[in-house]
Amino acid sequence: MISEPVHGGLTSGGNILSEHDVVAMLAEIFKSDNAVRVGIGDDAAVLAAHPGHTVVSSDMLVEGVDFELAWASMADVGWKSIAVNVSDIGAMGARPTALVVSLGLPPQTHIEQVRDFARAAQEAVDELAPGASIVGGDLSRAPVLTVSVTAIGVLDGDRALLRAGARPGDVVAYNGELGLAAAGLALLQRGGQRNRVAAMAGAIDAQLRPRPPVSSGGEALRVGATAMIDVSDGLAVDASRIADASGVSIHFDHTIFPRLASGLGWTRVELGLDPWALVFAGGEDFGLLATFPPGVVLPEGFAPLGVVAPRGENSVMMRGRPVDYPHWDHFEQATGLPLKQP
Amino acid sequence: MISEPVHGGLTSGGNILSEHDVVAMLAEIFKSDNAVRVGIGDDAAVLAAHPGHTVVSSDMLVEGVDFELAWASMADVGWKSIAVNVSDIGAMGARPTALVVSLGLPPQTHIEQVRDFARAAQEAVDELAPGASIVGGDLSRAPVLTVSVTAIGVLDGDRALLRAGARPGDVVAYNGELGLAAAGLALLQRGGQRNRVAAMAGAIDAQLRPRPPVSSGGEALRVGATAMIDVSDGLAVDASRIADASGVSIHFDHTIFPRLASGLGWTRVELGLDPWALVFAGGEDFGLLATFPPGVVLPEGFAPLGVVAPRGENSVMMRGRPVDYPHWDHFEQATGLPLKQP
Repeated sequence: MISEPVHGGLTSGGNILSEHDVVAMLAEIFKSDNAVRVGIGDDAAVLAAHPGHTVVSSDMLVEGVDFELAWASMADVGWKSIAVNVSDIGAMGARPTALVVSLGLPPQTHIEQVRDFARAAQEAVDELAPGASIVGGDLSRAPVLTVSVTAIGVLDGDRALLRAGARPGDVVAYNGELGLAAAGLALLQRGGQRNRVAAMAGAIDAQLRPRPPVSSGGEALRVGATAMIDVSDGLAVDASRIADASGVSIHFDHTIFPRLASGLGWTRVELGLDPWALVFAGGEDFGLLATFPPGVVLPEGFAPLGVVAPRGENSVMMRGRPVDYPHWDHFEQATGLPLKQP
Repeated sequence: MISEPVHGGLTSGGNILSEHDVVAMLAEIFKSDNAVRVGIGDDAAVLAAHPGHTVVSSDMLVEGVDFELAWASMADVGWKSIAVNVSDIGAMGARPTALVVSLGLPPQTHIEQVRDFARAAQEAVDELAPGASIVGGDLSRAPVLTVSVTAIGVLDGDRALLRAGARPGDVVAYNGELGLAAAGLALLQRGGQRNRVAAMAGAIDAQLRPRPPVSSGGEALRVGATAMIDVSDGLAVDASRIADASGVSIHFDHTIFPRLASGLGWTRVELGLDPWALVFAGGEDFGLLATFPPGVVLPEGFAPLGVVAPRGENSVMMRGRPVDYPHWDHFEQATGLPLKQP
């Protein structure tokens, strides 16, 4: 009780709202699937038993760190907080079933803002993870908008697609965009608006409303993929995570990348950025990078990027040289978008 | 990548640490049970399938709202963030199996602080939820220390103990302290230190290191309890939640409470607080309030507080009058500890 002090006022038309009012609104927006036996409103949610293994993942988005409300709306944040979490579930080859969404709200947050957030979060569930439900969470006061989501998913059996498992000879394939979300972020940080030329609008949409190919992860598992990761920190570093965990090296096919980089050619003119750096080091694409045994017919959406080789000196190679792009780290000083070319 | 900018430096002996270093440290502190097939380090954790239903709950603790680092150590926050979450799992009659812990860390957080947090969190798991494991989470930068924990648990079958289910004639019983944690908070807010007289030390410990009787929830379910809630917002309001959800009224036995209030008699002298207000409206005791069919032998630790009656005008009654203490709400203005007597 006294540990839950002054919110400073969540308001609606000048009236201060109670937590009860807000929870009631959220319970109306968040739809529950049949597998949810008890949803919002008790001490915990209850999910129906499932014969396969359970997977669980969590991501926290913080205003001023992961987004700015100057360029992302509450709805954008609601969508993205779901997208980044169901992406991790898909990357295990699992199907999202339930999400809990905890919100830290700054004083004077308006009820309509919470509603916008919640509606977009539900839309993201409907589009990216149909059959999943937002089953609970927590509301608190916080100095800045803070969103912490935990996603739960189920596997068909006991096999999950880990980062370890890639074998020499496997095909490396990817389903998603590369560098587009990072280009969108650069545009937004420079004050770009949504409705400009198509390429830029697409980049901004990729940053604000990512659409990870969640169900594609389960298809990769079913056809026999050996390892998988969602590309959140950049292709080069996420590929190195598979390589390091699997004890192999990944060799990218250099004939594929000029086309990928040329699709981002406009970023050099508009933003002064190197398209190659965006492709290899731009984060938040949330595509799926997987390795498949040779000869497997790749699931729809996956395109080859290279091959797995026995472990060499470097994790990720292209044209006989290491692919060595810097990447961002939560705890290291970042100095700007990397611009050097391989 | 570029969405994960400058942390401003998580430091150790003057060196800036990478997120990789911190995750490696956490992976060493957090022990995994056999039911965890994949723990920290992949896109998601993998938990072994279980034949019963799954329960899930989440709580966010924010510095300046739920605690102050002036009176709570990082270890206290680590312990409590686990305790409040496994309490919710126990309150469903379930057994905690896995937790994900997401941390928003202010710039210049020292690695030793994160270690203290993590070790105490693991100690809380070991003591309060043996068999459960911290399987993952997220690290981010944040303006103030922000801890978001999601707890997952399993039921033996498909029955959970909800707030709804109490029936007229049931016995109302409680396992835990009442008002002690709120008294501890008042002491801490007034600058109280840990090692004073025993009663005060106990109150401060109840506030900083709550010990919810988690396994007692499963015992209540097995002997046939009809409804249950953990008392986090105060006895009166949490009792009213059972009453309202069940469509009944709860009548407290007035002969029991003078003894409970007299145990807090020192708060009147030391803090100017009304012991009765603490008993009925003091929050964060995290004991279990449950209703049992008449004649059931109460599980160890539960003591009767009253009976369930058909629904009357008020949710919670004592000596023929409504028990009507104000309680705190995240979104309403709080003005101080309630002092009026029933």
